[in-house]
Amino acid sequence: MRFLIPVGFVLSSLLVASSPSASDKPLLGFSTEGAARQRALETRFDALLRKDNLREWMKRLTARPHHVGSPYGKENAEFIAAQFRAWGYDTKIERFDVLFPTPKTRVLELIAPERYTARLAEPAVAEDGTSSQSAEQLPIYNSYSADGDVTAELVYVNYGIPADYEQLEARGIDVRGKIVIARYGGSWRGIKPKVAAEHGAIGCIIYSDPRDDGFFQGDVYPKGAWRNDQGAQRGSVADMPTFPGDPLTPGIGATPGAKRLALKDAPTLMKIPVLPISYGDALPLLRALGGPIAPTGWRGALPMTYHIGPGPAKVHLKVEFHWKTVPAYDVIATLRGAEHPDEWIIRGNHHDAWVNGAADPISGMVALMEEARAIGELAKTGWRPKRTIVFAAWDAEEPGLLGSTEWVEAHAALLRRNGAVYINTDGNGRGFLGMAGSHTLERFINEVARDVIDPQKKIPVLERRKASERVNGDAERVREAKSRADLRIEALGSGSDYTPFLQHLGIASLNIGYGGESGGGSYHSIYDSFDHYTRFGDPGFDYGLALAQTGGRTVLRLANADVLPLAFSPFSETVGRYIKEVTKLADDMREETATRNQGIQDKVFELASDPTQRFVAPKAKAPVPFLNFAPLQNALTRLNESARIYDSTYAALTTAGRVPTSGKAKALDAILIRTERAMTRNEGLPRRGWFRHQIYAPGFYTGYGVKTLPGVREAIEQRDWKETAEQIVIVARVLEGVASEIDRATAALR
Amino acid sequence: MRFLIPVGFVLSSLLVASSPSASDKPLLGFSTEGAARQRALETRFDALLRKDNLREWMKRLTARPHHVGSPYGKENAEFIAAQFRAWGYDTKIERFDVLFPTPKTRVLELIAPERYTARLAEPAVAEDGTSSQSAEQLPIYNSYSADGDVTAELVYVNYGIPADYEQLEARGIDVRGKIVIARYGGSWRGIKPKVAAEHGAIGCIIYSDPRDDGFFQGDVYPKGAWRNDQGAQRGSVADMPTFPGDPLTPGIGATPGAKRLALKDAPTLMKIPVLPISYGDALPLLRALGGPIAPTGWRGALPMTYHIGPGPAKVHLKVEFHWKTVPAYDVIATLRGAEHPDEWIIRGNHHDAWVNGAADPISGMVALMEEARAIGELAKTGWRPKRTIVFAAWDAEEPGLLGSTEWVEAHAALLRRNGAVYINTDGNGRGFLGMAGSHTLERFINEVARDVIDPQKKIPVLERRKASERVNGDAERVREAKSRADLRIEALGSGSDYTPFLQHLGIASLNIGYGGESGGGSYHSIYDSFDHYTRFGDPGFDYGLALAQTGGRTVLRLANADVLPLAFSPFSETVGRYIKEVTKLADDMREETATRNQGIQDKVFELASDPTQRFVAPKAKAPVPFLNFAPLQNALTRLNESARIYDSTYAALTTAGRVPTSGKAKALDAILIRTERAMTRNEGLPRRGWFRHQIYAPGFYTGYGVKTLPGVREAIEQRDWKETAEQIVIVARVLEGVASEIDRATAALR
Repeated sequence: MRFLIPVGFVLSSLLVASSPSASDKPLLGFSTEGAARQRALETRFDALLRKDNLREWMKRLTARPHHVGSPYGKENAEFIAAQFRAWGYDTKIERFDVLFPTPKTRVLELIAPERYTARLAEPAVAEDGTSSQSAEQLPIYNSYSADGDVTAELVYVNYGIPADYEQLEARGIDVRGKIVIARYGGSWRGIKPKVAAEHGAIGCIIYSDPRDDGFFQGDVYPKGAWRNDQGAQRGSVADMPTFPGDPLTPGIGATPGAKRLALKDAPTLMKIPVLPISYGDALPLLRALGGPIAPTGWRGALPMTYHIGPGPAKVHLKVEFHWKTVPAYDVIATLRGAEHPDEWIIRGNHHDAWVNGAADPISGMVALMEEARAIGELAKTGWRPKRTIVFAAWDAEEPGLLGSTEWVEAHAALLRRNGAVYINTDGNGRGFLGMAGSHTLERFINEVARDVIDPQKKIPVLERRKASERVNGDAERVREAKSRADLRIEALGSGSDYTPFLQHLGIASLNIGYGGESGGGSYHSIYDSFDHYTRFGDPGFDYGLALAQTGGRTVLRLANADVLPLAFSPFSETVGRYIKEVTKLADDMREETATRNQGIQDKVFELASDPTQRFVAPKAKAPVPFLNFAPLQNALTRLNESARIYDSTYAALTTAGRVPTSGKAKALDAILIRTERAMTRNEGLPRRGWFRHQIYAPGFYTGYGVKTLPGVREAIEQRDWKETAEQIVIVARVLEGVASEIDRATAALR
Repeated sequence: MRFLIPVGFVLSSLLVASSPSASDKPLLGFSTEGAARQRALETRFDALLRKDNLREWMKRLTARPHHVGSPYGKENAEFIAAQFRAWGYDTKIERFDVLFPTPKTRVLELIAPERYTARLAEPAVAEDGTSSQSAEQLPIYNSYSADGDVTAELVYVNYGIPADYEQLEARGIDVRGKIVIARYGGSWRGIKPKVAAEHGAIGCIIYSDPRDDGFFQGDVYPKGAWRNDQGAQRGSVADMPTFPGDPLTPGIGATPGAKRLALKDAPTLMKIPVLPISYGDALPLLRALGGPIAPTGWRGALPMTYHIGPGPAKVHLKVEFHWKTVPAYDVIATLRGAEHPDEWIIRGNHHDAWVNGAADPISGMVALMEEARAIGELAKTGWRPKRTIVFAAWDAEEPGLLGSTEWVEAHAALLRRNGAVYINTDGNGRGFLGMAGSHTLERFINEVARDVIDPQKKIPVLERRKASERVNGDAERVREAKSRADLRIEALGSGSDYTPFLQHLGIASLNIGYGGESGGGSYHSIYDSFDHYTRFGDPGFDYGLALAQTGGRTVLRLANADVLPLAFSPFSETVGRYIKEVTKLADDMREETATRNQGIQDKVFELASDPTQRFVAPKAKAPVPFLNFAPLQNALTRLNESARIYDSTYAALTTAGRVPTSGKAKALDAILIRTERAMTRNEGLPRRGWFRHQIYAPGFYTGYGVKTLPGVREAIEQRDWKETAEQIVIVARVLEGVASEIDRATAALR
């Protein structure tokens, strides 16, 4: 998982007054009677939830390291499956055989100007009961690093993202043939070695700077929650923005007989050796660097002057891996729908961890299990959902969303037909509800958030989040918090198991979780443990329970609604914002480029430069042309109108008590499901066909961070004006296609 | 001095092309023939300047510590006076007897939870020849601290400015009865203990955080230029925003017989004990703090988690001083003007230092001396300035502008009549020209900057500064750099000897100096030495020479002009900006207050708070009323018109070859001099009558930082709406008075 940081927007203050008595409010997708029945069901559901289960299961599931391929990982899958079965689900474990390299050799030495051998180990601490399980712990490493044995001068590259290499270039520093050291943060980790390799580096070290993830943030473990000087962050460095999942079986399920790529042909394997280290190990290396002082924004919290290099620090990095294939065990538990069994509401969380993984992923997993248990209890009383509910516990998320991706790829045809909505969780903590996903579900998930009560403040979690926006938000957010009816949800980039559902297949998806008050730096270390979580995470499992209430309501409403509760105006409004953003992006780039080119022409960079420092003449960039955004704007006009008509028609029918049911509803659902499919193209995005969604994608150079309208936006960012023009037309057609589906839905509604 | 950081704005690019051949351009204040003669004189002046003199004098003047009252300080004054005499100036040393406490006892100990005794000493380093002169070095201390012996819990207060105390209040932390530790920066140092005492603290420690002034910025001394872990910043903590100068003789010269206040009645003496320390000494104290984590913006670069306290760190602070009166020796050298001997162009720099003071102040002093020498040489050839030139080498600037202030106060009546312009320098370094001062001199000083050539890039220093703006400025500055004819000069707050001239008497003033490329953290330490300066400052004295060229031209043009070269449109335009700023300040405060009060009413702060942290309910503030800014706006309209008419009339006369001369010019000069006087009021600013200027003042809670339209601006900041309304009317009347003087000047011009 990636860290879940709550960001977003909130309801108007008018709703505060009315929200306590929300129980008689209509529910999107339900008739008046359906809503009443649904609320009664949710009351029964809530009454069934037990915090003690969450604690007990977390204790059980985190008792030993449980990464993919580990003995305890398999035991956990079997334990979870047994629970699902006991709760009445049709349960199976689906096995995929996936590439999962583990370290054979790890050596990192500073060999000049002095010698230092990196420890590369996290010590056990007395306060943490599982931290001493060294026999089963995966060592500190980055999976899918290349094998390598390299010795070279070191260069500090800050976060190691493209903008940092522009700074290096401005100083005349070339990383070709060098080993780079980057700090964690600023992007998904896999971007760092990818960009380093693109620039000719032969090795990459990634460390956790205490500025971002250590004592600068708070007291360190075990005194406090934060990363101590020997703590390090494991993680994958496969090129996931190209495609996630098993590197050897792109686009198909990694079943036993599947055709596999040879290792040398696998495009997402990292091209250079990579190793993550602690800041304790980084300090001697960084301190030995000479060369220019790093720009202010590059300096972290280590007690030294940050220099860039190259050298005189010279390092030797050697990593070798066991390139083995291991079994990944997905647990799939199904409760068949009574009316629309072929419409699936899929609810997933991964079960594998890097080590003991209490916060990531078990804090979310145990909430999902409690949801499943309570729903199972309801089912035992004779209740049945209209639609089929699928609970999934994914394996192998950590190395690159392998469990979910292989399952999605293996069942792609079926899922394209039946996949209605996917709801994801991952880590969970104390604090504020984060909501991200398809904007057609924005209104729906806001209704859920209005009906879950915050365990600390006894107000709707939506209201608490809104209060947080008003206290901590910038001026625009505060303004929105007071003027907008719903909380604006975030778009999804990547970092957890929603990616194959949303971005490969076009299944409307949500990712939810609580956080913001349980700080700490245990992420992907041996210290992400039961002991850490119950001291600094969510000690009373109150937010675990809140997550079960939120996830459970989400699943139950989606499964029981008379028609799928999509609303299109929030989607079209959001797309309108994205179109404004990409237009402004091009305008700003045009102005910046012109200003910069004029400056180059007037020699201002040379004139302002310090003659005691090396001066590198900046290169002019081609002027940014004016672009024809009209196709997008025209498509938006149509989309806005289609969305307005569907939503208003739906509202009018609800008021009139004529929400479609049975056969008519089924036909409508089928069209509604297709609206998200219509946002995809079979050809996918340029140079990464696996990513088919045309509205949301992880950035090719951000990894976690979303790029909305990615075809257009990334073409602009890469200054490819021909591709920009092409993508504008392509995306405009996609939006028109979505509008057409919405029009069909309106027709089916009437 | 305070650090001189170049900020400001630059000429349009059109001027780049034409500036190399600027020698035939008109000069403001000169007839065409006068301008030609002046340029010829300046060519002779330039040819007389010798860099070696600067180096030699710096070596001589920094050979031993030379603070006010020291034996070597007196020797320096006598040496400087002897030089002036040798160069033909009517020279005298004026002595004032001023209060200058030096330490008798300094003890700082951490006594709980562990013990640490602060070293409070800067070690000698082999690379620095004068750093071992411990017998004559003033120890690390803050002058005008109270005597005190206090023991209390410690609280970290960030920069210790009012905004920081709002953060403390929001966390329920009270400094009453506590000792605070503040870091340098964010304000003039004297603000920190003043605000601490206002909040009830009983002692104040000020340390140099390596984030702002140490290894975070660059390699530390002697490897690099920056402050090492035992370096500390001496400095005054008298309440200079109330009045500068000798604390015992406010408003009058501290002559031997002057009536003096008793120590206990002196209002600018600090009320609590204060001690500055190094970051080496600060670390054990700060590391021992508990309590809440400091806000992100409060965290420096020490390798620890910043906590606020109070306690468990408990410290014992004891300081006792010798409260002695010492002689301050101002050197005053006069070259009588041939046509207008009663119009004085005064050019000053201080000569006293905290220790050896190479950068501060000798780098500026030696440039002034070389100007004086070359002008003396010109005078020996028979040339005489039209106006009287006064060179001043001030003593006792460091403890609080004592030498200049006492001289100004002692000669106030004469200076009110004769003081035409004051030109100040202080430290100087390699880099870009900084220009600040009265905006009636903005056009004039831009002309000077256009005619001095940058020693590194061989272009006008104005153009180099402009290039820097275009490379490093924000969007607005870049825009201005390409659209505005002149470089916008900064307004003067305080921090050097221009304050009594400008802000007490209303003598138009300028402060100039080069910097920005000679980094370092030697400020007010024993390491501000000849060795440091010639490694990291301006090793070749190239910018020392540039400063002599700039200062010399400024003096020569002001002294020789047919009429004083004031232009009023830049002033009125700038005042218009200030009026917009204060209007916007009130509008923004109104909106912020309303938003915050609404949030308090809606309980959002409570709802968003973390229940595991202490919650302190924020207090609502009275709404900000709408204010009548019309008097200011109407006065501005009149001022704009008066300025436009004077400047266009002057331009027309110049073009017609009819710049006033002799008697008519004398009458005009007298009015022009009065325009800056018209910006003052005898009553001064509210609660600080010594500060009479109504356009520029140092902020009561910033110290260095300027507050323009201070009466209005500070009343708004303090939310005193009655006073704001009063001050709007007062300042409007002042602006109308200035407009009337300008109208008189226009009449005299015709």
